[in-house]
Amino acid sequence: MPSVKLAAIPTTAPKKFGKDNTKERLTAILGELDDLQNLMYAEHKHSLLVVLQGMDASGKDGVIRDVFGTMNPMGVRVQPFKAPTPEEADHDFLWRIHQHAPAKGMIQVFNRSHYEDVLIQRVHNWIDVKTAYKRFNAINDFEKLLVQHNNTHILKFYLHVSAEAQWARLEERTKDPRKMWKYNEKDFAEAKLHKEYRKAYEDVFKYCNDVPWVIVPADHNWYKEYVIAKTVLDTLKSLKMKFPKLNGGKNNADKKP
Amino acid sequence: MPSVKLAAIPTTAPKKFGKDNTKERLTAILGELDDLQNLMYAEHKHSLLVVLQGMDASGKDGVIRDVFGTMNPMGVRVQPFKAPTPEEADHDFLWRIHQHAPAKGMIQVFNRSHYEDVLIQRVHNWIDVKTAYKRFNAINDFEKLLVQHNNTHILKFYLHVSAEAQWARLEERTKDPRKMWKYNEKDFAEAKLHKEYRKAYEDVFKYCNDVPWVIVPADHNWYKEYVIAKTVLDTLKSLKMKFPKLNGGKNNADKKP
Repeated sequence: MPSVKLAAIPTTAPKKFGKDNTKERLTAILGELDDLQNLMYAEHKHSLLVVLQGMDASGKDGVIRDVFGTMNPMGVRVQPFKAPTPEEADHDFLWRIHQHAPAKGMIQVFNRSHYEDVLIQRVHNWIDVKTAYKRFNAINDFEKLLVQHNNTHILKFYLHVSAEAQWARLEERTKDPRKMWKYNEKDFAEAKLHKEYRKAYEDVFKYCNDVPWVIVPADHNWYKEYVIAKTVLDTLKSLKMKFPKLNGGKNNADKKP
Repeated sequence: MPSVKLAAIPTTAPKKFGKDNTKERLTAILGELDDLQNLMYAEHKHSLLVVLQGMDASGKDGVIRDVFGTMNPMGVRVQPFKAPTPEEADHDFLWRIHQHAPAKGMIQVFNRSHYEDVLIQRVHNWIDVKTAYKRFNAINDFEKLLVQHNNTHILKFYLHVSAEAQWARLEERTKDPRKMWKYNEKDFAEAKLHKEYRKAYEDVFKYCNDVPWVIVPADHNWYKEYVIAKTVLDTLKSLKMKFPKLNGGKNNADKKP
């Protein structure tokens, strides 16, 4: 990707997308997605990896609930990546990630991902620039492996939220009883690094774009969810999947994922 | 590696290595190895991956028992790779391999490995040439990941056995009551493909030598074991490892591998 300046990209929905009509479109897409996910599971040939990245309160959890929550959980898995465990830290940074690569027929959603190893770790200077560049290369190799050797289609979404919207959402977590469980005392300190994170993301877009990033304006939840659902829909449609024919009983129905 | 012709490389011990003096040297090395493995575990900084490849009856199991069997099993793990399970086959060919990459401080031995995916699969034409070449690249990227991102030292041994010695050992399995459990009816059919396997190995040496291969004459078990033990010894010595100093009790003793 040529250099991206996040400050130049809107975080809000384009004018022609109103809240109500966009939500209607989303509902229609979710119906189609449910069918296509079932078809992918049945065909047992492709797999889909959805990488969700964004700062705290950019709305990753909401996407998982609203876009992927309507699909059959038999074929959809969600894996969050938090601070590495001691066992994970004793391996290369992709070790724990690779284990959760999707099996054929499956949709795998990463709530954060291997990109944290070149984001939070860079912003806090836990790694030097040389290590970051080596990791960019390792990430590109890793994504190529999944694409070339297991028919995995990767969609990488950056949830692009403004510093103001982020701050407002974090404050909500300290006030709304239904959101307090999400509050972490470190969040505000991290949010103050909004600009530094944007810079680290811009490098990620520049050096890890063999599998292209989709930058999703994320200040409006309904628009963000629409964009992601629509992108997943277009991707699944492009695969031209087909239900397997009867095959003397040797079908995929009892294959483990 | 420049092209290797296996037919031009002896499968027997060089003349200056007699059975008795080689076995004596091996015993001395094993004592040193035990200490160095303990040091590596204590230092918790490096790791060692030993890849054992070779045709049936080339003596992989013997190496594991005689060379690695004298070390503390707390710091040594052995992982055999057989035909992929359905779950493994639903992922890229390196998925199951990566899971067994060594943690810091550990020695991991692979009894067969990711190389089977460009050996048995090629000899039987289960994959085409294009796929094989893509796999060579993926393997190189994968080994680079372990080396660069987890301080893993990789030793790759090809146990180079003559067709005659291989055949004789397989016949032994049908006669010796202590070896019958190893006999598999497919082994003789595979052994008839000795030349084809050699050709596939020669390509592996050519295209996957970023981490260099060690070709070990393997008709004499005592020489084969000596060469492998000596190579491991030299590698571990080259790491200049040190026991960690007292560190306010924050040592590695209770770290999980």
